[in-house]
Amino acid sequence: MTLEDKLKKTIRDVPDFPRPGIMFKDISPIMLDSELSSEIIEHLYSMYKTKQIDAVAGIESRGFLFGYPLAIRLGVPFILIRKEGKLPYQKISHSYELEYGKAVVEMHVDAVAKGQRILVHDDLLATGGSATAAAQLIKKCGGVICGFNFLVSLDFLNGKKVLNKECESIISLINY
Amino acid sequence: MTLEDKLKKTIRDVPDFPRPGIMFKDISPIMLDSELSSEIIEHLYSMYKTKQIDAVAGIESRGFLFGYPLAIRLGVPFILIRKEGKLPYQKISHSYELEYGKAVVEMHVDAVAKGQRILVHDDLLATGGSATAAAQLIKKCGGVICGFNFLVSLDFLNGKKVLNKECESIISLINY
Repeated sequence: MTLEDKLKKTIRDVPDFPRPGIMFKDISPIMLDSELSSEIIEHLYSMYKTKQIDAVAGIESRGFLFGYPLAIRLGVPFILIRKEGKLPYQKISHSYELEYGKAVVEMHVDAVAKGQRILVHDDLLATGGSATAAAQLIKKCGGVICGFNFLVSLDFLNGKKVLNKECESIISLINY
Repeated sequence: MTLEDKLKKTIRDVPDFPRPGIMFKDISPIMLDSELSSEIIEHLYSMYKTKQIDAVAGIESRGFLFGYPLAIRLGVPFILIRKEGKLPYQKISHSYELEYGKAVVEMHVDAVAKGQRILVHDDLLATGGSATAAAQLIKKCGGVICGFNFLVSLDFLNGKKVLNKECESIISLINY
């Protein structure tokens, strides 16, 4: 079975979460399978090992799960993109619109060095709002976005067009 | 230099976060050092490889950072202990007291199998409130707590006494 098929089989659809009408893609069953987890990290490593990536940035919380192991495997720094109020040191913030209301992401100012080529990782790409916000933080600190990576892309929500950069996902879904 | 010394040198003290009078232990500089990160995971693996652990549970968010790589390295499932409202599937909750107010942690009911021996991991042990709450969730689902693990233990807050189980940390601090 291909990795793509294994992921499709393992990710669980949960209807009406977090709101009625949304089919949530629950990746937590992947975490219960250490062999599959390991295979995903090796797959991500093989995708990026020759791409001159200087650091991986992961978006809290689920972006920490594969982002950090990938960074370690690549032998590069891992940058934490966190929700508002979580990071203790000098930081910058970026707020962005959600369907209902606003969200804020933050990053330590010393997490990115000027000119560093950074891969932004999260578990799932929907409309691209949080990935775009993460990229804004990195660019404000002088980093260069060299691409975006997700386990799952919900292609019918057009996030890839919004990001407008090299954007890879292990599985792409054309509908819920 | 020992791993303990490297960690002490890398972890950053941030005064008055999240409240005046608290000296916050900021582990984010560890994430920027992939070699140190890798060494921590190998150290944790060597501590637990012979201890018959059936799964590792990590507490959101910072407990995901080392908990998941450790579980993968041990070849066992990783159980997500998350904040309220984050998990989409059937779950159980446990609320516990904080100095000011309450907090709730949640776990999917199918994340733990009856009789499984589970190591609870988080980045830092303070008073032991969230680790105790995580252990309650696991026990409610029939799991057996075989120990607790932290990168840093603030021993002057007496969390180890509260947990009252085998409890390991790479560094133990006797004051801020």
